[in-house]
Amino acid sequence: MTEQWSALERLMKQHGLQTLLITDPKHVYYLTGFLSNPHERFLGVVFQPGDAPFLVVPALDEEAARAATHGMEIVTHLDTDNPYQLLSKHLKTPAGKLGLEKEYMTVSRLEHLQEALALTEYADVGPWLREMRVCKSPAEVERIRRAVRLIEAVLEQALKQVKEGVSESELVAEVEYQIRKLGADGPSFDSMVLFGEKTALPHGVPGERQLRPGDLVMFDIGVYADGYASDITRTFAFGALKPEQVRIYETVLAANRAAIAAVKPGMTFASLDKAARDVIEDAGYGPYFNHRLGHGLGIDVHEFPSIHGLNEHTLREGNVFTVEPGIYVPGVGGVRIEDDCLVTASGVEVLTAFPKELQYL
Amino acid sequence: MTEQWSALERLMKQHGLQTLLITDPKHVYYLTGFLSNPHERFLGVVFQPGDAPFLVVPALDEEAARAATHGMEIVTHLDTDNPYQLLSKHLKTPAGKLGLEKEYMTVSRLEHLQEALALTEYADVGPWLREMRVCKSPAEVERIRRAVRLIEAVLEQALKQVKEGVSESELVAEVEYQIRKLGADGPSFDSMVLFGEKTALPHGVPGERQLRPGDLVMFDIGVYADGYASDITRTFAFGALKPEQVRIYETVLAANRAAIAAVKPGMTFASLDKAARDVIEDAGYGPYFNHRLGHGLGIDVHEFPSIHGLNEHTLREGNVFTVEPGIYVPGVGGVRIEDDCLVTASGVEVLTAFPKELQYL
Repeated sequence: MTEQWSALERLMKQHGLQTLLITDPKHVYYLTGFLSNPHERFLGVVFQPGDAPFLVVPALDEEAARAATHGMEIVTHLDTDNPYQLLSKHLKTPAGKLGLEKEYMTVSRLEHLQEALALTEYADVGPWLREMRVCKSPAEVERIRRAVRLIEAVLEQALKQVKEGVSESELVAEVEYQIRKLGADGPSFDSMVLFGEKTALPHGVPGERQLRPGDLVMFDIGVYADGYASDITRTFAFGALKPEQVRIYETVLAANRAAIAAVKPGMTFASLDKAARDVIEDAGYGPYFNHRLGHGLGIDVHEFPSIHGLNEHTLREGNVFTVEPGIYVPGVGGVRIEDDCLVTASGVEVLTAFPKELQYL
Repeated sequence: MTEQWSALERLMKQHGLQTLLITDPKHVYYLTGFLSNPHERFLGVVFQPGDAPFLVVPALDEEAARAATHGMEIVTHLDTDNPYQLLSKHLKTPAGKLGLEKEYMTVSRLEHLQEALALTEYADVGPWLREMRVCKSPAEVERIRRAVRLIEAVLEQALKQVKEGVSESELVAEVEYQIRKLGADGPSFDSMVLFGEKTALPHGVPGERQLRPGDLVMFDIGVYADGYASDITRTFAFGALKPEQVRIYETVLAANRAAIAAVKPGMTFASLDKAARDVIEDAGYGPYFNHRLGHGLGIDVHEFPSIHGLNEHTLREGNVFTVEPGIYVPGVGGVRIEDDCLVTASGVEVLTAFPKELQYL
């Protein structure tokens, strides 16, 4: 039994739970080594202390699940089966009080479970899993390092295709081609390349806009590799910029550096957010930094912690998260500079190494 | 007010609902024209009869939401806001009985809503939206046609890169490069290219396996274009096949053709599934066809209806779905042949036109 299952068993005893059902595919991966996208089909790992955990998977994933796990019991269901009844039949003892992930479990699935298991009580165990995942093991950090190295190599290749008249979509195509060619599992989110006025949309959609001199060029890209994510943003100049665009760039860079310099175990995420936000507010751009400073990074590209002004939790060794301040001024343009950071015993290690001084392409 | 909102208003009156909250991003797109991936942030469209619907979106999506909708009220929330309280404040009358999507709404969000809206009653409206979406308008069919044309052009380009020694991952890279280059929004699911023994995993993961003579080669790929999906599978031979592999191919092709020939309004989805399954069972491969015949296709690449032996609903004009029988024999290989079909007044129009006779590459 792995350390994770032992920890879950202790928590279940503390909280009086008899059965655990984990259905978030990323949590299933964390606990079993089996990574899959079940789409709308049912996937779950079930655990009752004193018995071995078992996996419930769609029949078409049976071989992949066997290959990824080692001797774990696999219960398969066809599209015509009721997976909740199958699950119920495989329980050694009555379900009792069930632990589930309230942020993943849908109301519909809960109703099916309530019926199949004659369930009366349940409790949220999502925070347990998030808490377990929030400090990365050295093996996990190694996987994130590899995902970071891959996306930086992708960015380096993609920059070679930057020239007047190229479209955002063409650069996205190049990014995703390189992501596959260099051996990542795939993009960790919709690859984003934006030019000019479109950089002022912090989550804009790349399209047929062609590159012109005087444009800001923003790449926000990442990969999954061995199930772990990277996420990086760099903003470049194509030809000469206006003085205000340069001032925005330098402000964002200073905010990024101020936050990274502040990282150390024991401080709160709120104060980390503030370290960057103060720089931007002092420069008069406060209202144009309209999102949180960053987010945790691991098996999910967006995971715990969320780094914003109301998060009073403290940083701990092994946390991995993004630091990504941005300023978006409609009609002028947007700049975001995003790094991936690991909290160490004494401070921070920045996992991303791509240069971030303003670069003219 | 669009036809959709009027239909929803009638349904709300019939079912005694005072408020509607739609949060599935695909349903939001269907109703408002605003397509986005809010990740873990809150996105929803809210409607109370007698008042105009309004959108609640993350602040960073505000401009994109304004550009996609026409004069709809947009309520934005920062990462530090409580979106449920904001929503509550914007209601003109008390929430009353709330309609929500039980298959999308998480237990956690429901609890937040119950608190912010002092909610006591709610009902599932997901089936209304699925029902509205299941018959496509001519404009929707045109978008699906474009997505099909794009993926077929991608497949044609990708086949040019098939040669001894190429890896599954390299062909996936080529597929995704062409998807972007030809102007699709992106893949509609993880592009799949499998060789040889790996074709026996119906949802296998492409990797470093290199192509060798005697391999079956399976492409299962699709795109989103203007928010609508395509999905096609073709299986090819690279060099000579074993007689059993050819027999499997011909059986799957006959099953695919038998199902398509059977399509007409008024029959049940169960009998459509049976039309293909009978062919495979008669050939002795019944146990190796371990998934449903197909799934609806539209704004989601997997949507209603699910075509399996227990679905007694009937086919209607305007339904669009996949027909994708497959046989997967460990140690021998797998074949799947998938077409996208539109139910017409008198029968079927097959939207996919890529040849499906066994082709030796």
